[in-house]
Amino acid sequence: MIIDLTHTLKNKITVYPNTLEPIFEQGNTIEKDGFAEINMTMCTHTGTHIDAPAHILPNTKTLEQFGVEKFIGPAVVIDCTEVKEIDLDFLKTKEEEIKKVDFILFYAGWQHKWNTERYFDEFPTLTTEAVKWLAAFNLKALGFDSISVDKMAAESLPNHRVLLKKEILIIENMTNLDKLIHKKFELNCIPLKIENSDGSPIRAFARLEK
Amino acid sequence: MIIDLTHTLKNKITVYPNTLEPIFEQGNTIEKDGFAEINMTMCTHTGTHIDAPAHILPNTKTLEQFGVEKFIGPAVVIDCTEVKEIDLDFLKTKEEEIKKVDFILFYAGWQHKWNTERYFDEFPTLTTEAVKWLAAFNLKALGFDSISVDKMAAESLPNHRVLLKKEILIIENMTNLDKLIHKKFELNCIPLKIENSDGSPIRAFARLEK
Repeated sequence: MIIDLTHTLKNKITVYPNTLEPIFEQGNTIEKDGFAEINMTMCTHTGTHIDAPAHILPNTKTLEQFGVEKFIGPAVVIDCTEVKEIDLDFLKTKEEEIKKVDFILFYAGWQHKWNTERYFDEFPTLTTEAVKWLAAFNLKALGFDSISVDKMAAESLPNHRVLLKKEILIIENMTNLDKLIHKKFELNCIPLKIENSDGSPIRAFARLEK
Repeated sequence: MIIDLTHTLKNKITVYPNTLEPIFEQGNTIEKDGFAEINMTMCTHTGTHIDAPAHILPNTKTLEQFGVEKFIGPAVVIDCTEVKEIDLDFLKTKEEEIKKVDFILFYAGWQHKWNTERYFDEFPTLTTEAVKWLAAFNLKALGFDSISVDKMAAESLPNHRVLLKKEILIIENMTNLDKLIHKKFELNCIPLKIENSDGSPIRAFARLEK
């Protein structure tokens, strides 16, 4: 069974402050041209997307430098709807699960605020101690149902830096993670193959064991 | 093991005549903005991509109306480097393989002409009889390493029509299919989740049994 973890790309979706708002508009049409196409303008961090180290750190890897294997593997969802911040004590209670997976996805319930102003309400983030502890595991990426792994006020993006330095990638703006709590599954979060890609929109989904 | 079947998206790649040429340009930068982003403009049929019925047929399905399952399944590559057209007699010799899979991918060797004028040389296409015969199988999609399932001169796009009417989708501009001849594998050809999408660029890849 498959669970889609992706928000729909369209006009007027939520974007990070001071980044390009996506535009989807009709290009060729069946009536006029014999075939229909949409012309799209968006940035590499639009909608449900993944960040490469080169998004933040100069002279580091872009997405197309990783093999597709980097974007597939066992994953776990951690429910953080009851915490204001994701601290080390909280994470340590999940250590046995964390050890077994390539991806940790954090469900905060922010998916319900997508495409509203409330999406920028203060979502739970990893404390400095917690993100450093996680960075020591052999993880492929962390995923969130909010717009950033850092607080909106944290302009220096410290959590991004700790993770991307270790080539632990970051998935933002996921949805439907609540459907995966306590489930065993494989995450697929495969980017487009874009030259020099600091990020990419993705079609993220879970493949569940029968 | 994974084999990537996707051409790299970048400026000046091959596009179908009279369609939008993609533009990838630096948006935000680490130096100026604290994070790097590429701003991208492209149409839904850029690079390695998949066609929905709504690309050609009015009032039919767009890609986001199919579940992700539609884009994953067992596949076979048919080598058609030795034929000028893909006719019924030729296909019938592969019938036992065709019966067992969700996807048939045709290797013509056109991947080597990608991003050159020669990509528009007359590539092998399915005869009318052959495409109708294939459309009777329970297939999810057909894939090609050329720019169309129709001849460039066939303005009415007859092969597109036969397939899309049966909701057999069409993957164009694939690469590396030669690496999969006589191999058993699962194809992944999952589109972005774009509202009203008549098509989408994809990261196509093969997962091989060990």
